[in-house]
Amino acid sequence: MIKVVLIGQGNVASHLATAFDAATNIEIEKVNSRHLKNIPKADVTIIAVSDDAISSVSNLLNASAGLIVHTSGTVPMNDMHQQRKGVFYPLQSFTKGAIVDFSNIPFCLEATNNNDLELLELVAKSIGEKSYHITSNQRKKLHLAAVFVNNFTNHMYQIGKDICDEHQVPFEILHPLIEETSKKITNISPKEAQTGPAKRNDQQTIKNHLEQLNSQQQEIYKLITQSIQEN
Amino acid sequence: MIKVVLIGQGNVASHLATAFDAATNIEIEKVNSRHLKNIPKADVTIIAVSDDAISSVSNLLNASAGLIVHTSGTVPMNDMHQQRKGVFYPLQSFTKGAIVDFSNIPFCLEATNNNDLELLELVAKSIGEKSYHITSNQRKKLHLAAVFVNNFTNHMYQIGKDICDEHQVPFEILHPLIEETSKKITNISPKEAQTGPAKRNDQQTIKNHLEQLNSQQQEIYKLITQSIQEN
Repeated sequence: MIKVVLIGQGNVASHLATAFDAATNIEIEKVNSRHLKNIPKADVTIIAVSDDAISSVSNLLNASAGLIVHTSGTVPMNDMHQQRKGVFYPLQSFTKGAIVDFSNIPFCLEATNNNDLELLELVAKSIGEKSYHITSNQRKKLHLAAVFVNNFTNHMYQIGKDICDEHQVPFEILHPLIEETSKKITNISPKEAQTGPAKRNDQQTIKNHLEQLNSQQQEIYKLITQSIQEN
Repeated sequence: MIKVVLIGQGNVASHLATAFDAATNIEIEKVNSRHLKNIPKADVTIIAVSDDAISSVSNLLNASAGLIVHTSGTVPMNDMHQQRKGVFYPLQSFTKGAIVDFSNIPFCLEATNNNDLELLELVAKSIGEKSYHITSNQRKKLHLAAVFVNNFTNHMYQIGKDICDEHQVPFEILHPLIEETSKKITNISPKEAQTGPAKRNDQQTIKNHLEQLNSQQQEIYKLITQSIQEN
């Protein structure tokens, strides 16, 4: 049995708490970060608070907290000053209220030594399936890559929807294509999966498309078309 | 029983042929577009050839071909000159050899009169579930929107993978996030679904991210960030 203390009240904390509650080899105790007085002893203490608060919360903990980890995608491990520290970062975008299936969420783990890394792997395996040893620098790169594949991709969806709305076309017609595009790259690389007028260098279609867009959409269309052709 | 003649040898033609073969209310006959002499009589003749060839193939057909439709996302219906004509466009990106589940693919239908539109709906329903009445102009807009949600989204995946590869991070860590992002917009609009540093106007993170990118990636990052903030 691994004793886990979970500090925090936000989305990540509440989703983790639900998952740990159901795990057979974890004894979980939840602590509100605003009442950090008698912090229980633990094998692992997980600080699931906002990025800005991680350092100050960690400063309130001592050796009885065991291995101290945060759950952030961006804060370096060494922003905490304990000897036994690490990172326990579930890479997913958590929505309040939505049910989270951790079996499909990868955990990015980091620690200062192999014993602690193995302990984090046990904790991750108790609620999920996949975990990766990722350094603070690699985690920083993952977070950056996630902006492209999540936030920027979502903006491509928004422009697609704007074009549909403007012409009374139901955006849902594009849902299956969106799903297919997202699935394809789990089998072949995005570079191999690329199709379309930019890839084919179909100048006539590119010209036709540009004529139908507003100026900001045109800039985006031109720049991404160029990037597809040069990469 | 609806008699369908299918002209073409490409991906769309072969996927449609497989689906029609399994449909109980369709009698399907396949014709090679290079041997267009004795074209059989039909209720519906589907021209599933390359965009460039649609007009010339349609010119070889007469009234015995019944309702003549093409399967293109971009060619206007009126590029064909028969009286009874239409469009039967399955909106998906077809990969050779891959199995296609038409039950999940929307058909965009167009015809010159309601009777022919209803006939196309029957044909679509025989192999799929969803069909939409879409004009040639709307289809043109759908095709444009598809470039954003498919080709440009795929390029966002490629940039994400490039960043991962450069730092020896397995791109597969991002697969669940990619899937989640694509699913989210089937429940809420992309605008509502947007998160991240651009949406939050988190200048410090944006600055950090830009410093980690090459010049082309920087241009894309800046332009999409600006577009997210202004839309």
